[in-house]
Amino acid sequence: MPVTTVGLDADDTLWHNETIFRLTQERYAALLADWADPEELEKRLAATEKRNLSLYGYGVKGFTLSLIETAMELCDGEAPPHVIRECLAAGREMLAHPVETLPGVDEALAALADRYRLVLITKGDLFHQERKLAASGLGELFAAVEIVSEKDADTYRRVFARHGTGPDEAAMIGNSMRSDVIPAIEAGGWGVYVPYHLVWAHEAADAPEHERYVELASIAEVPAWLAKIG
Amino acid sequence: MPVTTVGLDADDTLWHNETIFRLTQERYAALLADWADPEELEKRLAATEKRNLSLYGYGVKGFTLSLIETAMELCDGEAPPHVIRECLAAGREMLAHPVETLPGVDEALAALADRYRLVLITKGDLFHQERKLAASGLGELFAAVEIVSEKDADTYRRVFARHGTGPDEAAMIGNSMRSDVIPAIEAGGWGVYVPYHLVWAHEAADAPEHERYVELASIAEVPAWLAKIG
Repeated sequence: MPVTTVGLDADDTLWHNETIFRLTQERYAALLADWADPEELEKRLAATEKRNLSLYGYGVKGFTLSLIETAMELCDGEAPPHVIRECLAAGREMLAHPVETLPGVDEALAALADRYRLVLITKGDLFHQERKLAASGLGELFAAVEIVSEKDADTYRRVFARHGTGPDEAAMIGNSMRSDVIPAIEAGGWGVYVPYHLVWAHEAADAPEHERYVELASIAEVPAWLAKIG
Repeated sequence: MPVTTVGLDADDTLWHNETIFRLTQERYAALLADWADPEELEKRLAATEKRNLSLYGYGVKGFTLSLIETAMELCDGEAPPHVIRECLAAGREMLAHPVETLPGVDEALAALADRYRLVLITKGDLFHQERKLAASGLGELFAAVEIVSEKDADTYRRVFARHGTGPDEAAMIGNSMRSDVIPAIEAGGWGVYVPYHLVWAHEAADAPEHERYVELASIAEVPAWLAKIG
């Protein structure tokens, strides 16, 4: 069955994202150095984020609130005002951060858009993701954009049915084994893992053993791989 | 032209929302009573929200960050920790607040779903809106759900083309003159204004003079109105 539709994740697949979170976390560790060592702080922040996920969902605003909450906890409810101000500033800077597409993305997408229906499928904050897409200059290449609250097999079935010829004839490309690759394969499509050098702990998972699983070193390899299987 | 598709706003059209924001603001005013009188505080908060709109978009998380930022400003950067903790708590409570549908909504929607394609069209935070829809028990009545970052004429053209038979044969029902009514009419559809007793300043606008503009006192009147024009 030929692939007609290519789904693409956004953060850390098309543009840098985790890097910006890590930079913020480094700054945060420096800010709270008197209260916790970086490793302990990272654990505490991860625990706050996990606890808040069902309430906040994904995205920078929820992350910023988790930064403030973790600082409060760590300082026994008495975090100094300058710490809070720095957290607010860090959140704003993350939201306003320029979008940098990853190497090879522009060329690969231009090549793919000629032959396949491209669908952007991403989690995260609707407003922020739309702003990033606009800033990336890639918007025109996509036939559709789906910003979703969860990426499971049902999501891929629904999106590839709506915007393509069904999941059997679709490939999903992304840097998250857990959100992009595994559920897309479960839905009946191809799952193409293009790792980013940093992985958010929440998204880590083992590679599936499946004939429709593929790992590529870069998005630049996607057009040739699709031509080969097509 | 008969109406085939009915778009419905969510917050303050299907369920209470602004009430929850107002309760939070009352609590916030009490919390900051030593720094500002309620009127001054409301002005400052509204200014922060407006300034942050292009960065945060709509929703409770951005509102919570604006609460914290305004408190910081008001206290010359030295807001006491308990104020920040209360802001965080208020945000969490708003997100976890039970969804209460407005009087007549359940019956009106059940009646409308038999005859028309219902599409939920709402701004705000994707994750939170989906959670509220699930909690409302109304999800099954909608043929489609579109959570959008902006409600302008183009949005309504696109949504009513995708999920219906075009804006000419669609009616949009909502409590915001600015976001629900005026742009839906501009797109070629009917704009049905069903006021809520509280209006967020940002959403206020004058009623348009247009043959496709209608004001109804309650959503309960929508089925009979549609039958009459239909």
